Amino acid sequence: MEDFKHIEWKDGVFYVLNQIKLPAVTEYNPKTTIEEVFYAIKDMELRGAPLIGVAAGYGMVLGIQNLEEMSHEEFMEIVRKNGEYLATSRPTAVNLFWAIDRMVAKADSLKDFQVPEKKKLLEQEAIAIHAEDIEINRHIGENFLPLLKDGMTILTHCNAGVLATTKYGTATSPIYLAKERGWNLKVYADETRPYLQGARLTSYELHTSGIDVTLICDNMAGVVMSQGKIDAVITGTDRVAANGDVANKIGTMSVAILAKYFGIPMYIAAPTPTIDMNCPSGKDIPIEERDRREITHWYGRQIAPEDVKVYNPAFDVTPHELITAIVTEKGVVTPPFTDNLKKLLA
Amino acid sequence: MEDFKHIEWKDGVFYVLNQIKLPAVTEYNPKTTIEEVFYAIKDMELRGAPLIGVAAGYGMVLGIQNLEEMSHEEFMEIVRKNGEYLATSRPTAVNLFWAIDRMVAKADSLKDFQVPEKKKLLEQEAIAIHAEDIEINRHIGENFLPLLKDGMTILTHCNAGVLATTKYGTATSPIYLAKERGWNLKVYADETRPYLQGARLTSYELHTSGIDVTLICDNMAGVVMSQGKIDAVITGTDRVAANGDVANKIGTMSVAILAKYFGIPMYIAAPTPTIDMNCPSGKDIPIEERDRREITHWYGRQIAPEDVKVYNPAFDVTPHELITAIVTEKGVVTPPFTDNLKKLLA
Repeated sequence: MEDFKHIEWKDGVFYVLNQIKLPAVTEYNPKTTIEEVFYAIKDMELRGAPLIGVAAGYGMVLGIQNLEEMSHEEFMEIVRKNGEYLATSRPTAVNLFWAIDRMVAKADSLKDFQVPEKKKLLEQEAIAIHAEDIEINRHIGENFLPLLKDGMTILTHCNAGVLATTKYGTATSPIYLAKERGWNLKVYADETRPYLQGARLTSYELHTSGIDVTLICDNMAGVVMSQGKIDAVITGTDRVAANGDVANKIGTMSVAILAKYFGIPMYIAAPTPTIDMNCPSGKDIPIEERDRREITHWYGRQIAPEDVKVYNPAFDVTPHELITAIVTEKGVVTPPFTDNLKKLLA
Repeated sequence: MEDFKHIEWKDGVFYVLNQIKLPAVTEYNPKTTIEEVFYAIKDMELRGAPLIGVAAGYGMVLGIQNLEEMSHEEFMEIVRKNGEYLATSRPTAVNLFWAIDRMVAKADSLKDFQVPEKKKLLEQEAIAIHAEDIEINRHIGENFLPLLKDGMTILTHCNAGVLATTKYGTATSPIYLAKERGWNLKVYADETRPYLQGARLTSYELHTSGIDVTLICDNMAGVVMSQGKIDAVITGTDRVAANGDVANKIGTMSVAILAKYFGIPMYIAAPTPTIDMNCPSGKDIPIEERDRREITHWYGRQIAPEDVKVYNPAFDVTPHELITAIVTEKGVVTPPFTDNLKKLLA
């Protein structure tokens, strides 16, 4: 598959492909401060739970670049403040908090090192988070393949692809791996309003990689299912609760209900850092509401009355009873999820 | 309620509010030829099954304005050719064919009149179609009210409002009538991709009329249902088959499946000209596919890879088993629809 080079860490600079401008414009922006990483996450220049985690790691590195020698306590106060700051960039993605916590814990373990060495070792930690994500995605794809067959057609929602991760993607990983093995999988991609991650990102990366992808509007998913065109639904997730409830991009729950109605399996691709055993159920997942202008305007053009009421939740929660299996890098989890997620992570 | 004056027939000219440019721009275009009416329908400057029917009536009038005296056979040849031409402007809306057939039949009944009188009487027929639509819509609303209660919240999809008809709308008729009676109904309006009739038209006309309307993306309908916010779904229809299957704007079937899942009644507002007893079931309704650029581009701006595959059906068919009731100007039809539609039209 094509390597998108959508992120790169090089000589202390974090380069980010601006996903807001895809597919028409290819623009790489260098990030040299934690504030720039904060806004890259907040403004969705990069998005996708795993990629946000990797970006947070590099953001934490950039946040200490200018520090002079100081006590470990002073150093940790800054690191913790940086972490708290970065954690407010997006409220829902558990990978963000996970990566920050990991960087903070690593920093705290470096009590006996001078600041320059601390910087070096924390950079290595961020690079390790990055490398581990690639391996996680590859394993998710490998664990998916026994559930699929050559010739199948997959429907996906939003972008849990290469552009949401570092390589392979999560939901797309079996599709890219299947291609490497000579299988012929077809894909239907929901455009995913309001931010159009499916149109701008999923159809872009699959099409560029030579996958047979058909773009549809979100409200057409039911029709292609009713026509017998879809063999499986695969989406990513931003957070899996301990009972198997799954938070993901707005619209995922509706796709799951449609899949249930038409007897189509609903699979969730979930790296284990996305599983939050401290979160008992979907009810405990805070749902971010985003700017009304995402719905009332389009690149500055007004498409609804200026002052009409708008509801714009960024995520929804798919109840576990609608989910056929959660596929992780450590294995496939089927119901009952409460028991089986616990076993997986044991 | 505010009178939108979105169409007007005056001194032999058919004035049309260009719905493509709403809500940002208010532009009235005078139509003086049948070709202009053809393109107004085809390019969706006006849309909505009942309004297309009314426009077709005026289009048929404009198509004979320049005719000199001739034999009835010659006259009817032109009228029939005009009807066949106009019928190709949109393939799915049965009101279009119904209005054309009515105008052709009326023309054929005028054998004993000279051409100037034929013109006059056909103009009266088109005006009658227009006036009857207003009455139909009012009666639909009145028949709906016993199914609803003050304080309820309605979800609607696409625009079966004033702008799709001549006044009151079909799906919106109970909402406007309820307001006239001092009820407080709230509305959630799906934006309705790709053409955004919900954002541009439904939220516009309801908001302008002082109705409490909240705009959401199509993929958020399931979430507001899951939150217990929706008491009933009401949509319009482009064609009802004899078994109660309902063709309507793409996404309606998915909304119906979601409503079923959450135990919410699914009502269809259907003027009887929309009921096609010659069409046994939804399988017999041709589904128009529209231009790929409706999905890949947005007001000229590219939002998907230029050459990616696209599927863009304009309509879907909601199977009758998902429908709670079909509300017409002649009464409320409940299952079994095959029998009860027959009784209604008897």
